[in-house]
Amino acid sequence: MSKWVRFKHRDVTAFGKLVGDQILVHEGNMFEQPSATGEQIALGDVELLTPVEPTKMVAMVNNFHALLDKLQMPVPKEPLYFFKANSSFLADGKTIKRPLGYDGKIIFEGELGLVIGKTCRNVSVSDAEDYLFGCTCVNDVTSFEILNRDPQFAQWTRCKAADTFGVMGPVVATGLDAGQLTIRAVLNDQERQNYPITDMIFTPAELISAISHDMTLLPGDVIACGTSVGVGTMRPGDRITIEIEGVCSLSNPFE
Amino acid sequence: MSKWVRFKHRDVTAFGKLVGDQILVHEGNMFEQPSATGEQIALGDVELLTPVEPTKMVAMVNNFHALLDKLQMPVPKEPLYFFKANSSFLADGKTIKRPLGYDGKIIFEGELGLVIGKTCRNVSVSDAEDYLFGCTCVNDVTSFEILNRDPQFAQWTRCKAADTFGVMGPVVATGLDAGQLTIRAVLNDQERQNYPITDMIFTPAELISAISHDMTLLPGDVIACGTSVGVGTMRPGDRITIEIEGVCSLSNPFE
Repeated sequence: MSKWVRFKHRDVTAFGKLVGDQILVHEGNMFEQPSATGEQIALGDVELLTPVEPTKMVAMVNNFHALLDKLQMPVPKEPLYFFKANSSFLADGKTIKRPLGYDGKIIFEGELGLVIGKTCRNVSVSDAEDYLFGCTCVNDVTSFEILNRDPQFAQWTRCKAADTFGVMGPVVATGLDAGQLTIRAVLNDQERQNYPITDMIFTPAELISAISHDMTLLPGDVIACGTSVGVGTMRPGDRITIEIEGVCSLSNPFE
Repeated sequence: MSKWVRFKHRDVTAFGKLVGDQILVHEGNMFEQPSATGEQIALGDVELLTPVEPTKMVAMVNNFHALLDKLQMPVPKEPLYFFKANSSFLADGKTIKRPLGYDGKIIFEGELGLVIGKTCRNVSVSDAEDYLFGCTCVNDVTSFEILNRDPQFAQWTRCKAADTFGVMGPVVATGLDAGQLTIRAVLNDQERQNYPITDMIFTPAELISAISHDMTLLPGDVIACGTSVGVGTMRPGDRITIEIEGVCSLSNPFE
């Protein structure tokens, strides 16, 4: 497994491989055999950025059996999704903020993020994993009370689009079996979500294949796999941590 | 009025001001006092690109009285929208293509596109026009039969997201009164849409203000204002033209 990070150090944006608490700086393209520069920087000395810069984040709904069972909803026949706003992306450690003019509930949703490594179009399920670069944590933050307040149109895009609501990182971890991971969400010190990716309705390979038939996925694009049971409201002063168990954790204050 | 275009000429991407059939090449930032290089190129000698490269295209639904009257739907209390995929953008003259694996109806929707010129966040209605750079034509192409085929989730994002479905251009026209324009759609030689922007529920300034309270809009971002009556199906071999009457027209074959 390698863990890739993007960061800012002395006003320069760079990327590298995280080993322990040291970043081995690399150059070139993260997705195409980048090479080590030999430089090494302590993790504590950098400002972490989102680990990739997606041209789009495709975010799934209704993709876990446990959540659909709880909501007494049927299993969908095909993957269902919306886009997060590119202006919503937020790195590990940065503050999730309430949009001005919305005073309702704001919820966290802990999710697995699949990071695409190669341009991907009309790919079969059996080939799909060749296009998966690695995995990251996603917190799909939501202004929950906007979703259903118009009787004619569910506002999925809007309730998910605010600045700071597309939280991702801290690393992209490569070499994992994405289908076997466990996702946790911890609000302050309390575990609120803990669910296996094996409960997913559409597997990582099925998602990549299906979405690649709908549109072209580009290197760095992210598929947020949807969440399961246990999502909840954040209150000012809370800290929310999304974790791929044993791999990495994404932790942000909310104000 | 100025008409800005982006184009490729001898493998170089550039932009300029269209005057008659000549492009006066400019350099710098299109949105911040670009300067003329003195070079002039005939429009016929370049490959037109989308006039801007949006980080997002926010596309409205249910935003014209005539269409809601026809559908017997109530007027929404707030702007309703989804995002077009950034991978869907297509320039004037390029071919709109059917996604592999979808054999249902594909429709055109002629729309006014508002191009943002300055970073825009929490802007009042009275200040909103300061952030509007100009206007363009949008064809919000849609795989119509995907929209409502899942009983639990309207697939707005997916049915609008295919490659080549975010058609825009050919120019960004500045100095217009956006609220007073007329939009036409012509399928082959037959006029199919012809509606005034005055029939809009939320005006251009109200849209910019409202969306800027939901998320940050960046220079080059586009708000597609939604469509009115007269949308229809395209068949292979058709040519669809979207026009801001008296300003510019966006014409694409469909196959």
